[in-house]
Amino acid sequence: VNAPFDPGSPSHVDSPIITLLTDFGTADYFVAAMKAVILSVNPHARIVDITHEVAPQDVQEAAFTLLAAYLTFPKGTIHVAVVDPGVGSARSPIVIDAAHQLFVGPDNGIFSYVCERDVPSQIFRITNREFFRQPVSSTFHGRDIFAPVAAALSMGVSPEQLGAPHDGCVRLESLEPKPLKKGGFKAHLLHIDRFGNCVTNITRKHLPNNNAVLAINGKKIDCFKDYFAAEELKKKKRLFAIWGSAGFLEIAAQDRSAAEILKARRGDKVEVKTL
Amino acid sequence: VNAPFDPGSPSHVDSPIITLLTDFGTADYFVAAMKAVILSVNPHARIVDITHEVAPQDVQEAAFTLLAAYLTFPKGTIHVAVVDPGVGSARSPIVIDAAHQLFVGPDNGIFSYVCERDVPSQIFRITNREFFRQPVSSTFHGRDIFAPVAAALSMGVSPEQLGAPHDGCVRLESLEPKPLKKGGFKAHLLHIDRFGNCVTNITRKHLPNNNAVLAINGKKIDCFKDYFAAEELKKKKRLFAIWGSAGFLEIAAQDRSAAEILKARRGDKVEVKTL
Amino acid sequence: VNAPFDPGSPSHVDSPIITLLTDFGTADYFVAAMKAVILSVNPHARIVDITHEVAPQDVQEAAFTLLAAYLTFPKGTIHVAVVDPGVGSARSPIVIDAAHQLFVGPDNGIFSYVCERDVPSQIFRITNREFFRQPVSSTFHGRDIFAPVAAALSMGVSPEQLGAPHDGCVRLESLEPKPLKKGGFKAHLLHIDRFGNCVTNITRKHLPNNNAVLAINGKKIDCFKDYFAAEELKKKKRLFAIWGSAGFLEIAAQDRSAAEILKARRGDKVEVKTL
Repeated sequence: VNAPFDPGSPSHVDSPIITLLTDFGTADYFVAAMKAVILSVNPHARIVDITHEVAPQDVQEAAFTLLAAYLTFPKGTIHVAVVDPGVGSARSPIVIDAAHQLFVGPDNGIFSYVCERDVPSQIFRITNREFFRQPVSSTFHGRDIFAPVAAALSMGVSPEQLGAPHDGCVRLESLEPKPLKKGGFKAHLLHIDRFGNCVTNITRKHLPNNNAVLAINGKKIDCFKDYFAAEELKKKKRLFAIWGSAGFLEIAAQDRSAAEILKARRGDKVEVKTL
Repeated sequence: VNAPFDPGSPSHVDSPIITLLTDFGTADYFVAAMKAVILSVNPHARIVDITHEVAPQDVQEAAFTLLAAYLTFPKGTIHVAVVDPGVGSARSPIVIDAAHQLFVGPDNGIFSYVCERDVPSQIFRITNREFFRQPVSSTFHGRDIFAPVAAALSMGVSPEQLGAPHDGCVRLESLEPKPLKKGGFKAHLLHIDRFGNCVTNITRKHLPNNNAVLAINGKKIDCFKDYFAAEELKKKKRLFAIWGSAGFLEIAAQDRSAAEILKARRGDKVEVKTL
Repeated sequence: VNAPFDPGSPSHVDSPIITLLTDFGTADYFVAAMKAVILSVNPHARIVDITHEVAPQDVQEAAFTLLAAYLTFPKGTIHVAVVDPGVGSARSPIVIDAAHQLFVGPDNGIFSYVCERDVPSQIFRITNREFFRQPVSSTFHGRDIFAPVAAALSMGVSPEQLGAPHDGCVRLESLEPKPLKKGGFKAHLLHIDRFGNCVTNITRKHLPNNNAVLAINGKKIDCFKDYFAAEELKKKKRLFAIWGSAGFLEIAAQDRSAAEILKARRGDKVEVKTL
């Protein structure tokens, strides 16, 4: 579907961007060790942290954050995503070529949402130890496999040099809302952000005209707004729907956390009645 | 007052610094999206995070942190500050030219303290959509307006290309302590730092000789120290005043959080009796 | 023991890495101020944060994190470590040349573990004010001394230009476990990481064959594993020992925080019975 990744494009080779997305937190030495390895291989890599605050081992949260971020990066960007409860075991390290970017990490669903939006042109299993840091530990492939492999890719190594083609990759539950027999559809919360905005899996193609009522946790939301700071809403309309910056419909509240008002958690069901 | 910003100075063009100061936290995709946009426009930008831990929508906290940081940066630095409860509404996006640096963000008071210290030479309202990321969302101007505009400035675009001159800018309450009829003056806490040090709005010009007694929350502080780790103080003198690294007088405590001892919160009044 | 630091090596001069390790947190202006000073002196420095989340004034935690990170960095890296309760007082600012890297910070034990592993070839007391930011505050040597000195080193200034040789440096308690009369040895927890893994001070040279039983806080651990995600262990064997990525034996738990199960805190004793 996509043209294969082009490691020879000048912007890529001159100043490749390598992003990092992990559940390592920022208190330990883990993230610095990955950056050290990358800069040892490619002193000119530009490293951008997406986040390291993914809840420990929460692959779905990582998958969402990567989905929300990757399209803002230029072609040739290399994303390293390491939320890896299976580190050292049989799960495969992979590199995915999709949307003219590369994605490096464990095959455990972390790239699921990206692959659902942008069908990969190629996937390879990473087995070529030539590009690993030695010795390879069994507990920190972020440092010993994924970081040096990403750095190698940023130096012009092609994905096929890393190993054999890999069939498909592990998928999380689809991003698509499910149609209901009685009309409308059933969506859910993909994410709750720092401000308490509740991000659903509903996109504009599902609701091109904003003609809908949402029901979540016993509350109804029938008001759509264009931005957060509008005129005072009537109290009972304090909750509203708004198209968020990641392309999904969000449930928000005026000057407050919608998640708090709704006692919402990720995964909560959202029933959508179209009008 | 200041010479106009010089976009043509070599150090600026070769390796421009763009700082980011937001209330986005570091768990979401927001900060990474801003960096992605900046590096898409200017692959050579050097991005420095000031902080993303400003409490949600706390414009005053952001204004203080920017005040404490900007003078350590070299001429030509471009500061992007986005604490923006009014995003998408009528508040103006602006660029300020002051102290040979540029400041990009919403006109909501976030640049108030900088402008109080360094009178701007120019302010422009940002309206030229040519420099925006398309399409412009109504909820994330950090990514769609402020980041790409800062990147454009770092490439040599001049502030006047962004829009028409803007009259003044929104001001927070002044940083100046207020004289009291009975002598002395009334100050307040601008900030409480990680260590519990309580930063007042008192500068050396107000107390050139350290001859003062401070009163806050029912406690008196009459001891001035030069550094934190001095000889053991008598217990009742555990609290002391010290000139802090941001140029303001701070109230600190030996081996403890002064804020905790004082049950202090930002904004608390400090009465200063000069001797 | 080590060859002296070579400031003239091309990779060092072209794109020197300066790391930062502090207890400043990321909410205040402190870290940004250090970066601003570094980039003012050397616009080409590549700054890598190790962490800023060290608990306030916790020198031992900083020493461990530096120990776990420094060997992943290339030769010529300059590490700035500032956890500095004695700032402004009599403690010495020093630069250490060890393992073909430089270490800049206060002489309070923060470099103790690095020096225990890699005997320094040289240590100098930093007194040459020519390389300081002026005026030097008495509360923020990170910004006014350590950052500009590190930047100067990254520009090719040699450590001996900074001041006179310094005899030894402050040492924390040794990393070495202590032999017990009855056989085996007494170790302790050096660190607890984000995942609740408990890092001991035991290295492979102490237990080359994994033949041991560990006792900590009333629990015994006699199971060694190679990676975290193995087959289900019997419930009572949920805790296991594993060689961690920093080179130390760790106590971990399947899908849970070992520290929580053990109610473990840093410093807790670990008795090791060899079999």
